Amino acid sequence: MTRAQLIEQIKKKQSFLCIGLDTDVNKIPKHLLEFDDPIFEFNKRIIDATKEFCVAYKPNIAFYESVGIEGWKSLQKTLDYIPKDIFTIADAKRGDIGNTAKMYAKTFFETYEFDSVTVTPYMGEDSVKPFIEFKEKWAIVLGLTSNKGAFDFQYIPTQQNSVLYQEVVQKVSTWGTNENLMFVVGATKAKDLQEIRKIIPNNFLLVPGVGAQGGSLKEVCENGMTKEIDLLVNSSRGIIYASQEKNFAEKAREAAQKIQLEMQQLMAELL
Amino acid sequence: MTRAQLIEQIKKKQSFLCIGLDTDVNKIPKHLLEFDDPIFEFNKRIIDATKEFCVAYKPNIAFYESVGIEGWKSLQKTLDYIPKDIFTIADAKRGDIGNTAKMYAKTFFETYEFDSVTVTPYMGEDSVKPFIEFKEKWAIVLGLTSNKGAFDFQYIPTQQNSVLYQEVVQKVSTWGTNENLMFVVGATKAKDLQEIRKIIPNNFLLVPGVGAQGGSLKEVCENGMTKEIDLLVNSSRGIIYASQEKNFAEKAREAAQKIQLEMQQLMAELL
Repeated sequence: MTRAQLIEQIKKKQSFLCIGLDTDVNKIPKHLLEFDDPIFEFNKRIIDATKEFCVAYKPNIAFYESVGIEGWKSLQKTLDYIPKDIFTIADAKRGDIGNTAKMYAKTFFETYEFDSVTVTPYMGEDSVKPFIEFKEKWAIVLGLTSNKGAFDFQYIPTQQNSVLYQEVVQKVSTWGTNENLMFVVGATKAKDLQEIRKIIPNNFLLVPGVGAQGGSLKEVCENGMTKEIDLLVNSSRGIIYASQEKNFAEKAREAAQKIQLEMQQLMAELL
Repeated sequence: MTRAQLIEQIKKKQSFLCIGLDTDVNKIPKHLLEFDDPIFEFNKRIIDATKEFCVAYKPNIAFYESVGIEGWKSLQKTLDYIPKDIFTIADAKRGDIGNTAKMYAKTFFETYEFDSVTVTPYMGEDSVKPFIEFKEKWAIVLGLTSNKGAFDFQYIPTQQNSVLYQEVVQKVSTWGTNENLMFVVGATKAKDLQEIRKIIPNNFLLVPGVGAQGGSLKEVCENGMTKEIDLLVNSSRGIIYASQEKNFAEKAREAAQKIQLEMQQLMAELL
């Protein structure tokens, strides 16, 4: 999917919501366990219930990988089921030397036809480049993450009077364009968004951590939104596990719609 | 596998060779393509030919993942075929927030029974800890890598008069012990080994980049070997693709034996 197509979807749906499909067989409603593929059955119902309110789905690959071959089958079926006008993110956080990175890019862009993959920057340019060499595909590189461990290295002061995550975002941004590079920026640190926007004024940001992890959508929008939006805000558990009862899909729909309405209002206010 | 067991194997075999199973169906000898599972058939012959000269096998997960479900089946068969007294490394370079890292640990330690997984440090402590909480399992954390991209971030000078990779190794080393933490240190930078050994005098190092990538085994040993060895030196392409003809297994055996003999001699000289 191109940048223009993604922006078009955001404007049409008045939403920049990404829903994380962190589907764990131990957390889904018990009545789904009767099906041959409970993970896919869960995702199918979540997609049906939420697709009008979101512009992206982000399966967390760990959850599928951890159940072995059956998990990869569930992932494939889920991808096939997602409407083609919705952006797909393989949240895989891959990163390896050039020839291996090529293999990972092939996995997610050819074997599974994702639009994008999350990528970790530690190994540098040759670990990122293979992902952006695919036409109309995206690398979403970790800048600042929303977990506690983000403080271990991402804020290390560097001799350029900067901190590591800012040097990472600055350098990585020179390897591609805003047509093939996005960055992960944790929403629990909305003030950092101001710093990030000085470095990359018009790249899409994928913002996790709103909702369950405590980030404020309003703060994210005030500090991170551009004229072309350039935001994808993710919610996973707050939507897909809004209820663990038989009405889970209805509750997921309500949770997604609530965020969409908040987004619509913020877009009206800020644009 | 415990540290004591691994050291015992190294002393018994007079080898600290790790063989990388970067098995690419486009690079294996053509006559193997007749089999149902060419990737496994290749690995099986490589393992038969080299197992007496190495103490570890390291499948590069990207190569298996990229061919989809069949690849995961080949990986499982390969793992089952590796003798139990040989250390196994899932070269997966995973790294994600705590609850996701747990899923990845479960994948490689329970679903597939690897002894260890390579882990990327960018997301900090909660992305590494879940891997070392499994008994007799290891996290092998990226310190300094051997690729060109290593220069992008790993050598960033920090305000502590250090460089990033040294701060990473120092901090990560406090999260575990030399019974559950190893570090990746690229062999193309043998002088950096001296710096690393000041920080972690007795953790195992996994050293890629000897052979095809130009690192010198002698230099690695002079700067990185301890009284208990504490080295695993990896070679992938130099062994498994020593020949692409029908005699590939014999040539792989010769290549592995050559390195083992060099290791035996270096152990005799330096210990």
